[in-house]
Amino acid sequence: MGQRVKGVVRYDGTGFAGWQVQPGARTVQAVIEEKLALIAGAPVRIAASGRTDSGVHALGQVISFDWAADVPLERVRRSLSQMLSPEVRVERLKPAADDFHATYSAVAKTYAYCISEARDADPFLDRYVWSVPWEIDRELVRGLLSRIVGEHDFAGFCSSGSSVETTVRTIHAAEVVDGPVVGPVDAVDTWHIRYTGNGFLYKMVRNLTGTIIDIARGHLAESALDERLNAPMPYAGFSAPAKGLFLVEVQY
Amino acid sequence: MGQRVKGVVRYDGTGFAGWQVQPGARTVQAVIEEKLALIAGAPVRIAASGRTDSGVHALGQVISFDWAADVPLERVRRSLSQMLSPEVRVERLKPAADDFHATYSAVAKTYAYCISEARDADPFLDRYVWSVPWEIDRELVRGLLSRIVGEHDFAGFCSSGSSVETTVRTIHAAEVVDGPVVGPVDAVDTWHIRYTGNGFLYKMVRNLTGTIIDIARGHLAESALDERLNAPMPYAGFSAPAKGLFLVEVQY
Repeated sequence: MGQRVKGVVRYDGTGFAGWQVQPGARTVQAVIEEKLALIAGAPVRIAASGRTDSGVHALGQVISFDWAADVPLERVRRSLSQMLSPEVRVERLKPAADDFHATYSAVAKTYAYCISEARDADPFLDRYVWSVPWEIDRELVRGLLSRIVGEHDFAGFCSSGSSVETTVRTIHAAEVVDGPVVGPVDAVDTWHIRYTGNGFLYKMVRNLTGTIIDIARGHLAESALDERLNAPMPYAGFSAPAKGLFLVEVQY
Repeated sequence: MGQRVKGVVRYDGTGFAGWQVQPGARTVQAVIEEKLALIAGAPVRIAASGRTDSGVHALGQVISFDWAADVPLERVRRSLSQMLSPEVRVERLKPAADDFHATYSAVAKTYAYCISEARDADPFLDRYVWSVPWEIDRELVRGLLSRIVGEHDFAGFCSSGSSVETTVRTIHAAEVVDGPVVGPVDAVDTWHIRYTGNGFLYKMVRNLTGTIIDIARGHLAESALDERLNAPMPYAGFSAPAKGLFLVEVQY
């Protein structure tokens, strides 16, 4: 089995069909596993804190895998750095406890969702924001975010197509932060929402953000948030686009 | 002749062979002129504050041109926004005095040059920094920059291939600023140099930056800066790579 290893991966998701290996698609997991296999001389299967969808970015995705080859981890990291395209970087690799598992050992995750109200799409922001053509009441966004903090059944914000034992999750914090997550220093009218919680359902961050923006631009009534918070049905509203979403960090 | 127009253009230079129209190459000037011609129904020739080389970016390039077509400027801007790829954005278009000329009316320019000392290339920074594998003495950089401020003959920092009447220029300010010009909020070990002056010779910012970094990493003696400052010969040292350079703004 070799040694259990923990790593941190950072990627620009623009050119990938998401994290998870899929036949015929260029995914982040696939390109890393391919290079690791070349270094190890044998297949390596990696686990991640969670999948990210096509176009979603990561500042700090966490992975784990078993390393049996006789190549020190620092050399593995440097080899990966040379072999991978610049869009993906494995930043840290270190020995972990035998029972560490990137998916199951995670206790909290932070996501950020970036929004631009700038009139023109910015060449340096375009891949990393949802550019909204509306004026957004940011104070209203703050008020709505305060209502999702705590333990809730988020079934009504989960897109169909997932199977989980429970749809109850706890949001520890949900805040508005000025400025982009990735972008130019002079970006104006750009801000992001930072969500931290013990877990997130399929498309939950994009669905929450879609509903919050729909309310804050005056398209939906404020009551829509509470209605969806208690709904047993899968989400049927607007999902914020993938490109504005970043997996920021994972706590263990 | 129509009306003289001033515009501000922002571009990610990664996919372009620089600003200036060249046969067979995709340049920023060419793509904008092509779209303007479609809107005007006639050729439009634009002037810029200056050329930028292949791979160099602009937060605020300034252009001027004559607009004779019966299409209001706000509609021109919106049409350009729809027609241009996201890497280029014409942000403002407004009437200017008949004698305004983007090249000749400029009185000062600000460039920024971004450097990363991070061990790993960052997927969100790679297109916008020079990643140096050395530790840089930033205090030494500050000291060197203070010596180029003022009026100097910069012939020794001009790459050959340019013809100008005088190689004397005045640098108004040259400072180290923490953080990237374009990049992720969590970028560490990344900083940039902001140069403001009344004009810059061909490759002067990249040549100055190359020399300063070569000194600050201990590869060249400190005296090399003064020697090159007074040299009558074209620059023969290292040029910092294009991708770290941004034309930030132009004053008129």
